[in-house]
Amino acid sequence: MRKVFQAELQQVGEEMVQIATLVEEALANASHSFLNADVQEAEEVISNDARIDFLQNQLDERSIDILALQSPVASDLRMIVGALRMSSSLERMGDLARHVAQIARMRFPDHAVPASIEPVFEEMIEHDKIIIAKVIELLETRNLEHVDAISRSKVRINELHRKVFDILASDEWQETAQVTVDATLASRYLERFGDHGVSVARKVTYLVTGDWNISS
Amino acid sequence: MRKVFQAELQQVGEEMVQIATLVEEALANASHSFLNADVQEAEEVISNDARIDFLQNQLDERSIDILALQSPVASDLRMIVGALRMSSSLERMGDLARHVAQIARMRFPDHAVPASIEPVFEEMIEHDKIIIAKVIELLETRNLEHVDAISRSKVRINELHRKVFDILASDEWQETAQVTVDATLASRYLERFGDHGVSVARKVTYLVTGDWNISS
Repeated sequence: MRKVFQAELQQVGEEMVQIATLVEEALANASHSFLNADVQEAEEVISNDARIDFLQNQLDERSIDILALQSPVASDLRMIVGALRMSSSLERMGDLARHVAQIARMRFPDHAVPASIEPVFEEMIEHDKIIIAKVIELLETRNLEHVDAISRSKVRINELHRKVFDILASDEWQETAQVTVDATLASRYLERFGDHGVSVARKVTYLVTGDWNISS
Repeated sequence: MRKVFQAELQQVGEEMVQIATLVEEALANASHSFLNADVQEAEEVISNDARIDFLQNQLDERSIDILALQSPVASDLRMIVGALRMSSSLERMGDLARHVAQIARMRFPDHAVPASIEPVFEEMIEHDKIIIAKVIELLETRNLEHVDAISRSKVRINELHRKVFDILASDEWQETAQVTVDATLASRYLERFGDHGVSVARKVTYLVTGDWNISS
């Protein structure tokens, strides 16, 4: 019985990594489609998101079954509760990548944002990529050394998010309101993506230490 | 023992209603400050949000303790897992109300959005108010009749959210990029508020029926 239980816990861990890996792929493709006006790639991100949602539901059902049938306690209980919470953050990260792809699709054949502001988005995306890569390592290894890198990238994303708004509010910004709307939303989506990564990092920290020791 | 357990479950339910009631108040005050450029009211919403976060953490800790100590099964287990999930939606609704208040504070003494677009925001807010009021009734009564009203208001919010973007993209819209950014974000926050209300309604439905029978 105990052996079965350990195998089930391990499967939950593996499925979480699987979902996070799909989110990493969604972010890579969504951001590439966003920066390069690649409508086909955007379509793929949008249709692939259903797979993430499906896996999240499956993981949640499995977690609830484990709670019901095994009544885990202590660190096993924390792990299952953590899985329930982390899976919803990962699912949201997938949604946010999809939203970025949806902007790319809607503006095609134009680029979603003008070249003048692209470098700021490129840097935000770079940090979101660091965050999801480190989240995957964290889920795989439980090595809390990765938490710092996640927090640092989130601090930088917050600065870049403010920078986008400073650019939009400046006299040099002469774009249409439509472009302003798209840049505002894309920046918000990329900023929230990072928030959810930090949220997963906090939950892994809680699993490992029992404490919430990084701020959300 | 069983009696203690039932009292604990009841307390979780009552605390959830308490949090939802604070969210309702936050939305009422945030939207009033947003539409009336009332900076003092906006400040209150912003500082009161910490209370919602505190209560959510406390509820989560209590729920995990119940899982650890009582190993609930069947409908009791669903109720506790549901509480863990719903509390995070309610906490996000509080955050979103705070974000709306932050826009009001940032633009004071100006109104956050121009009079021409205020009626659209007023109607969105009205539907968000219906949603949180119905969520509270749903949490209190478990009467699934309220779910329909929540879904209907969300459909209308989606239409209004698109209407905001149509107005922003129209030739008549001659506001600064800053105003466009604020209107975009406020509309997004109010739209997400409704999404989380729908999410709570789904979870209550799951508690009552065991099925996910309204779409997210």
